[in-house]
Amino acid sequence: MVESLGVTADMAFSEAERAAVYRAIAERRDVRRGFVDRSLPDELLQRLLAAAHNAPSVGLMQPSRFIVIRNLATRKAIHDIFQEANANAATTYTGEQGQQYAALKLEGILEAPQNLCIVCDAQNERGHKLGRHTMPETAAYSTVCAVQNLWLAARAEGVGVGWVSILDPIRLRGLLRIPERLLPVAYLCLGYVDRFASEPELERAGWEKRVPLRSAICYETYSEEDKS
Amino acid sequence: MVESLGVTADMAFSEAERAAVYRAIAERRDVRRGFVDRSLPDELLQRLLAAAHNAPSVGLMQPSRFIVIRNLATRKAIHDIFQEANANAATTYTGEQGQQYAALKLEGILEAPQNLCIVCDAQNERGHKLGRHTMPETAAYSTVCAVQNLWLAARAEGVGVGWVSILDPIRLRGLLRIPERLLPVAYLCLGYVDRFASEPELERAGWEKRVPLRSAICYETYSEEDKS
Repeated sequence: MVESLGVTADMAFSEAERAAVYRAIAERRDVRRGFVDRSLPDELLQRLLAAAHNAPSVGLMQPSRFIVIRNLATRKAIHDIFQEANANAATTYTGEQGQQYAALKLEGILEAPQNLCIVCDAQNERGHKLGRHTMPETAAYSTVCAVQNLWLAARAEGVGVGWVSILDPIRLRGLLRIPERLLPVAYLCLGYVDRFASEPELERAGWEKRVPLRSAICYETYSEEDKS
Repeated sequence: MVESLGVTADMAFSEAERAAVYRAIAERRDVRRGFVDRSLPDELLQRLLAAAHNAPSVGLMQPSRFIVIRNLATRKAIHDIFQEANANAATTYTGEQGQQYAALKLEGILEAPQNLCIVCDAQNERGHKLGRHTMPETAAYSTVCAVQNLWLAARAEGVGVGWVSILDPIRLRGLLRIPERLLPVAYLCLGYVDRFASEPELERAGWEKRVPLRSAICYETYSEEDKS
């Protein structure tokens, strides 16, 4: 019976395995600087993409498509798209906050030898719409789960990942020839790094502080009582 | 210099640590059956929530809020919401597919001693909108990253997690008193399980098959050439 269910024989993680998973989660960083000018071996890149592809997906639709970008001309064009979006964003901040924003390093498009655009084929019929009747957004969410799998695997491999959302998705779509029916979900910069910071870059730069976990938890129903 | 950057001293993961991370990714399952009727110790639940809370978030806004639900009456009311949505969904399948759908087990709301609704406070000013000018959906995506962190940590702890998306989000919101400005992103069933299946439940049931990784990858620009 157990065998016919395709059960994994040795289920429990050892204490060391468990600690490794928590370590990847705790030490994962959004990396925008310090990329080493050395391409990832294709085998390593394939391992990272396999980790992403192993993500849960609603109805087992597996809607994620991975566009690997190494071409420098393409990355320069993406960087132009970033610069325009970032200049627009910068105008919304004034005074000290404006100066602080201008000083932030928010992407590593040119420094990271490989970029990765992850798109969601949300209209794809795979999965026969199971799980998507009431919450169709779960197709895009499946693709985000793929991003997070890749991010954690990358940390374990010593590969930095940065997510760049300061991009006009319409221009991105045009440049990468992404059809209308696909949704660009994430644009990532990937590369070896010499080190990972011990805290988020935006916290170190004084832009924002992390909140304590207890302020994010409630029991039985939603509530906003002050838990800080 | 290195110290002032708050750098982790011992960066590289060992081979065993790397393997543990990939193991969690490969052996994570969407669990809908086999939950053991034993509550998770609060300390364990807090570790899982801390893993979720450690997820990346756009602009470091940390928009995720976690509603822990143990109350059986609440879970019964959620189960009613599921049953209505599932009955509606079932009407869209006919013939053999209709019979197959009816036979699927798609949630463990009552069997899992704890449920978790994860919502996104997407209008929250934390992060000062950094990264959200062109792609505001990244707030909700941050919450999905939290879900995936929790899912992998849970696998390492021997805890099964199932994501239920067959729910009317408006009724869910009403029942859990989630204000309009917050977005219900994920409803999860959590609990100890005796075993994890070696393949996705929907694949074993013959509903859908996984596609090979190579069919999901393209280079430099999007393309749909047949890679199977």
